[in-house]
Amino acid sequence: FESKLPNLGTSIFSQMTTLANQYEAINLSQGFPEFDAPELLKKQLNHYVLEGMNQYSPSSGVPRLQQQIAELAQRKYGAEINADQQVTVTSGATEALFVAIQAIVRRGDEVIIFDPAYDSYQPAIELAGGKSVNIALHAPDYVIDWQAVASAVNKNTRAIIINTPHNPSGKTLKQQDINALKAIVSAHDLYVISDEVYEHITFDGQPHLSVLRDDALFAKSFVISSFGKTFHSTGWKMGYCIAPTSLAVEFRKIHQYVTFSSFTPAQHALADMLEQQGEHVDELSEFYQQKRDVLSNALKGSRFTILPSEGTYFLLLDYSDVSELNDVEFCQWLVEQASVAAIPLSVFYQQPSYDKVIRLCFAKSDETLLQAAEILCQL
Amino acid sequence: FESKLPNLGTSIFSQMTTLANQYEAINLSQGFPEFDAPELLKKQLNHYVLEGMNQYSPSSGVPRLQQQIAELAQRKYGAEINADQQVTVTSGATEALFVAIQAIVRRGDEVIIFDPAYDSYQPAIELAGGKSVNIALHAPDYVIDWQAVASAVNKNTRAIIINTPHNPSGKTLKQQDINALKAIVSAHDLYVISDEVYEHITFDGQPHLSVLRDDALFAKSFVISSFGKTFHSTGWKMGYCIAPTSLAVEFRKIHQYVTFSSFTPAQHALADMLEQQGEHVDELSEFYQQKRDVLSNALKGSRFTILPSEGTYFLLLDYSDVSELNDVEFCQWLVEQASVAAIPLSVFYQQPSYDKVIRLCFAKSDETLLQAAEILCQL
Ligand SMILES: CSCCC(=O)C(=O)O
Ligand SMILES: CSCCC(=O)C(=O)O
Repeated sequence: FESKLPNLGTSIFSQMTTLANQYEAINLSQGFPEFDAPELLKKQLNHYVLEGMNQYSPSSGVPRLQQQIAELAQRKYGAEINADQQVTVTSGATEALFVAIQAIVRRGDEVIIFDPAYDSYQPAIELAGGKSVNIALHAPDYVIDWQAVASAVNKNTRAIIINTPHNPSGKTLKQQDINALKAIVSAHDLYVISDEVYEHITFDGQPHLSVLRDDALFAKSFVISSFGKTFHSTGWKMGYCIAPTSLAVEFRKIHQYVTFSSFTPAQHALADMLEQQGEHVDELSEFYQQKRDVLSNALKGSRFTILPSEGTYFLLLDYSDVSELNDVEFCQWLVEQASVAAIPLSVFYQQPSYDKVIRLCFAKSDETLLQAAEILCQL
Repeated sequence: FESKLPNLGTSIFSQMTTLANQYEAINLSQGFPEFDAPELLKKQLNHYVLEGMNQYSPSSGVPRLQQQIAELAQRKYGAEINADQQVTVTSGATEALFVAIQAIVRRGDEVIIFDPAYDSYQPAIELAGGKSVNIALHAPDYVIDWQAVASAVNKNTRAIIINTPHNPSGKTLKQQDINALKAIVSAHDLYVISDEVYEHITFDGQPHLSVLRDDALFAKSFVISSFGKTFHSTGWKMGYCIAPTSLAVEFRKIHQYVTFSSFTPAQHALADMLEQQGEHVDELSEFYQQKRDVLSNALKGSRFTILPSEGTYFLLLDYSDVSELNDVEFCQWLVEQASVAAIPLSVFYQQPSYDKVIRLCFAKSDETLLQAAEILCQL
């Protein structure tokens, strides 16, 4: 059997979690929280299950939830969103990314993505018959050279995928990045897929510069977010896409044949959660900033170089002073010999990267973080 | 914006449910049960949510559930399935169909499908760069002419999609159909996508001839099923695909980038349900046969001609003696003027069909069915 994705195996996140379980290691690899979903959310889910809300929702989502999503976008970003026409609930942000890519990428199209890139972008582009044009960013700053982006644009370029706050680097786009993106998009009539799944997790008082803040940019964009990240419920697989009506129409055509709709009781519960405990969203940055600080402070005595994390729940470490191994070998060694599971950065690059950097997830209890740091300090 | 699926709008099921709600009609259109999911299933879901099983499951599914699925296939069809490698849990059978199609259909490939066909097959084939070759079956028997199928095969043919019990016709494939399919598949080295979402709903003592019963055929097949159908929980969006290991590998590559994984607590609850109340599955045929009989008996005095239903929860009616309208107009009239929502059969055909047939869903309470029948008897 000849594979349509010959270069792909099991995702690195699945691989490392499997290894972590096998070696009973502290799992700071795959990004998922150690804390549970909010009590209200769980209670409301159970309520709707018992109440019998167990059949199909509308394909685009439960209207109450679409409305709450639109209101959140209004409150946080001043965006005027038509809930009914522009918000589509999906089975996780992964589905939203896949569908947005299918909606716009045609055979022969090029899509600019920034390496290190989330692992689902490239296969989704390839399955749509397109080609990714990967622009590599590097430690320690992962700064985008917008001149290079402009030069990479040609007549086949269809879209640019951005991700802010950025997984795995923890960087956030600044206003000058958004301006540069906007200039390129409007000069060449491109689309933007904006992966904003960590939108509510930014540090040190920095605002999240959502594409939703900018009407002209939003007019060409799919904005994607994740309730899993926001409500510590990655296993519920609930996300959404906000897009201008003309793009949402195309998004929905595909969504209805990819999953049709998402888990109905969770949609109602999420609507209640956003309505009744909207403050959860606003507390998230502080909550995770404290986690970041616990981990980085505890690593200060180590031989790792801590790279800045401005958002997400990930922290990068440069291990040049710790080991000669390449990052894949080092992570393998780390999980087997030191009982800490991390993600090697090179797997997020299309071309081999020679940075000696690994990613740790700090969405864990302080105890877990301190325990991991203690091990890492001994290396 | 130029659409990748220019001929597609909102799915007929969404459209008719919207109309049914708008006109407060009895909704026998979109296929979903009026009865709730089993108490045990709901109770266990709530249990696992409270217990904190709210993070990502493995991408291929919770091992306990994979195991239960394999055991069910063994018990019902004598199939020897490797749960770990061959069973993949998906976010509904729709996702499983989409992923299976993406896994095998390459640009230029042809896929044979039988009209009336479930509406997701064709867009999924097109998005993969393939082309559907539609073989039309007609009322009242919807018999497959396997000679015509053999003639439709050419060097570009990649796969055949079968669906038994068949939505919308309610027909089941017989052993001679399976034999004919098998001969064609092995003569031309084709793949089979076997949509068996109504596998546990067959009537009058007829067995379900799953592809899983036949090792040689299974070796080339993706077998797809749906917990939504089996456990009256269409809104949970839980399904699965069983495939030989070499095909499952390709299926999983794509699944991990389409949704990655499915709602974790539901997977644990479904494992408990299959383990503790396996008899539910065996009682389903009798349960729905009684529904079918309630509806068809109540329609005996009407001017509709009732077509035979051998499985699924759908019944077809020929309305030639009731109205001159075409089926789309007739369904429109029916929901607006008679307060009964049904599905016109022509929407399941690529080429216009001139049969005067509509589909009713009988997964409803006896009261609902009798109420609808009373209206229909007056036409
Ligand atoms: C879907 S598994 C990957 C989780 C994640 O977002 C990450 O670890 O980067
Ligand atoms: C996913 S909505 C369609 C439900 C269904 O299977 C049908 O009505 O045929």
